[in-house]
Amino acid sequence: MKTLVICSGGLDSVSLAHKVAAEQTLTGLVSFDYGQRHSKELGFAAACAQRLGVPHQVIDIRDIGRQLSGSALTDDVAVPDGHYAEESMRITVVPNRNAIMLAIAFGVAAARQDEAVGVAVHGGDHFIYPDCRPDFIDAFQAMQDRALDGYANVRLYAPFVNVSKADIVTEGARHATPFDQTWSCYKGGEIHCGRCGTCVERREAFDLARLPDPTPYADADFWRDAVEAKRA
Amino acid sequence: MKTLVICSGGLDSVSLAHKVAAEQTLTGLVSFDYGQRHSKELGFAAACAQRLGVPHQVIDIRDIGRQLSGSALTDDVAVPDGHYAEESMRITVVPNRNAIMLAIAFGVAAARQDEAVGVAVHGGDHFIYPDCRPDFIDAFQAMQDRALDGYANVRLYAPFVNVSKADIVTEGARHATPFDQTWSCYKGGEIHCGRCGTCVERREAFDLARLPDPTPYADADFWRDAVEAKRA
Repeated sequence: MKTLVICSGGLDSVSLAHKVAAEQTLTGLVSFDYGQRHSKELGFAAACAQRLGVPHQVIDIRDIGRQLSGSALTDDVAVPDGHYAEESMRITVVPNRNAIMLAIAFGVAAARQDEAVGVAVHGGDHFIYPDCRPDFIDAFQAMQDRALDGYANVRLYAPFVNVSKADIVTEGARHATPFDQTWSCYKGGEIHCGRCGTCVERREAFDLARLPDPTPYADADFWRDAVEAKRA
Repeated sequence: MKTLVICSGGLDSVSLAHKVAAEQTLTGLVSFDYGQRHSKELGFAAACAQRLGVPHQVIDIRDIGRQLSGSALTDDVAVPDGHYAEESMRITVVPNRNAIMLAIAFGVAAARQDEAVGVAVHGGDHFIYPDCRPDFIDAFQAMQDRALDGYANVRLYAPFVNVSKADIVTEGARHATPFDQTWSCYKGGEIHCGRCGTCVERREAFDLARLPDPTPYADADFWRDAVEAKRA
């Protein structure tokens, strides 16, 4: 199946790109520049495309980002530390982001005559992001089937929608994903901060998968306390 | 109901803006710059917002337009003359355009705490545009209900989805829509060409609604032959 993968340069989507390249026909990567603070992620997406020998399209949707205010990913709001704290993660939500990116990716896939769009939404995001849940994925496919009826038939491929981030690490390792060539941190340092929600989640995922984490962190131990506090 | 209206500056969406302003709470107009050949439309949308005393947001999605090739609205492909000719109109389709614009508009509405997004899709487009059909509208709402679950509750208001363009003219006239301040033509002249698919459809709609068409056309009589040819 000719599959276009949405790739942010993060651990999940780079792992997905490697999985698709191994199991299906990867036709390209598409990334979105929505005005995220740090373009480091996009560089890792470009490196992934080069490694896998496919074209990389970066679609500029910064003007959409500007109009959807209130998000720490694009605005001058402090990114919270910690893990699994629903209120502190809500601030990182860009309203309707997945629906917007998926709709654009389906347009690109239809124009390119691809058969599928791959997206790395995963089970660990369900509790806070409604647009990462299985019922959203199903409803999105149903919407697209009607929107493209008679023009194109594009499947939404979301193989991580019911698995944890630790399972993604396991699957990524199976396909030789170079995890040090992926970026998760919401902050803007030279290396991963180790303290923000995604850094803690990333570090914990390697621990649960019982695989070495090749990522250098500014604060390499913060995650243990955060995870213990959450489990308590 | 606080409603944001997607307004291209065309007859349908300007009529919708006037209808919403009269019947509900119009909070603003949003237009999309997707690299359409002519910005004349967007000027009419801005004039509509000013007339109705609401803000006008223009969202730049030109980079998306560039990536979705094959459309006469954005590429250097000749726009066909005529009416109701399915093949000649297919060329004017930007893949997934309505899904993309609606998803963005829902994000804007959620960010602004609006309660509805108004869109002027209409019955006359069903035969060629799948993303103007009632089952698409219903599926889109179902998708958004899941995407925004817990964050926002935004309704899709598409009052023209089952009516003809003639009915829109009737409804627009009821709300004193200044039709001469709307733009339909797919070509780039000073005035409406009178020959392209949308000009013919526009002229016929006034005829069927038995209302005077204030639009100056370069070729004011072409529509009769096109409609007769279609009806034969």
